[in-house]
Amino acid sequence: MNEQSTTIGEIEAAIRTIPDFPRPGIQFKDITPVLADPRLFAGSVRLLASSVGGQRIDTVAGIEARGFIFASAVALQLGAGFVPVRKKGKLPYKTLEASYDLEYGTNTIEMHVDAVKPGSRVLLVDDLLATGGTAAAAAGLLAKLGAEVVAISFLVELTFLNGRKRLSGYQVHSFIRY
Amino acid sequence: MNEQSTTIGEIEAAIRTIPDFPRPGIQFKDITPVLADPRLFAGSVRLLASSVGGQRIDTVAGIEARGFIFASAVALQLGAGFVPVRKKGKLPYKTLEASYDLEYGTNTIEMHVDAVKPGSRVLLVDDLLATGGTAAAAAGLLAKLGAEVVAISFLVELTFLNGRKRLSGYQVHSFIRY
Repeated sequence: MNEQSTTIGEIEAAIRTIPDFPRPGIQFKDITPVLADPRLFAGSVRLLASSVGGQRIDTVAGIEARGFIFASAVALQLGAGFVPVRKKGKLPYKTLEASYDLEYGTNTIEMHVDAVKPGSRVLLVDDLLATGGTAAAAAGLLAKLGAEVVAISFLVELTFLNGRKRLSGYQVHSFIRY
Repeated sequence: MNEQSTTIGEIEAAIRTIPDFPRPGIQFKDITPVLADPRLFAGSVRLLASSVGGQRIDTVAGIEARGFIFASAVALQLGAGFVPVRKKGKLPYKTLEASYDLEYGTNTIEMHVDAVKPGSRVLLVDDLLATGGTAAAAAGLLAKLGAEVVAISFLVELTFLNGRKRLSGYQVHSFIRY
């Protein structure tokens, strides 16, 4: 095995499954043991950063709240800036918002109108791809602001939820799949 | 001026004051322009990481949600692990919780019971020191888990709120003061 596949195997072994969280029937993938281990944390950041294969990235966007964790470290690793995608009402300046459907009801996310410069090359990073609703909404906001979404990268993908379907048209990367 | 004071001056110039957010009378310090600028973002991370003066740090703890942004990047910079301090109900595994008083009511934060090893050397990082309630509660949780809180570092401090008073007994660092 090469270094990358060794790292992926170790990260996968450290992810902990918590049954019935946040509600009965859900097998929650808990990545906190990966974050807490200096080597696995840095390894995960390197994997996510490597997903753009050396292309120039101006900005890494991260989705509140857990998505901030990898996204800001990946921004540092790539020498890029960081922009937060937040829940409605959290950003203090003028915002653009996008809503998307959940199983029950809808959710709304926002970005500052000046978060990215038109033409910026953006990498969107999140820890986990589930249904893809949030990532699709965030990528749509970035496009509306004139940015180019170079790729969307996740550490973990729950393939049985078909999140990639909602992200068709984007380069999507993931490293650990369930 | 040396490199560090130049960086501090540039970061201070990039911070934007938003009047009456989140409610009338509050002058909100918006750091998103700092995050979005690759050089100022990396400079801020270096400043926060340098606050421990080269001492060994095992773990950097960050407070949900905005606090995750600098804390995880500082963890990467220091070669440390990252642990999240979250709002009640967000962490999937067994937790320890702490409550603290707000102007109206109380707030509760949680950490996983296995977030840090006993004896770990922890740096707590947040973007802004206001009243210090959240940071004091987080530091208390870390101590209960057996960690040593080496320092608590903030990019910005609102000195008129006397947050340091609630953090007496800890090494507290900040770089930009209002």
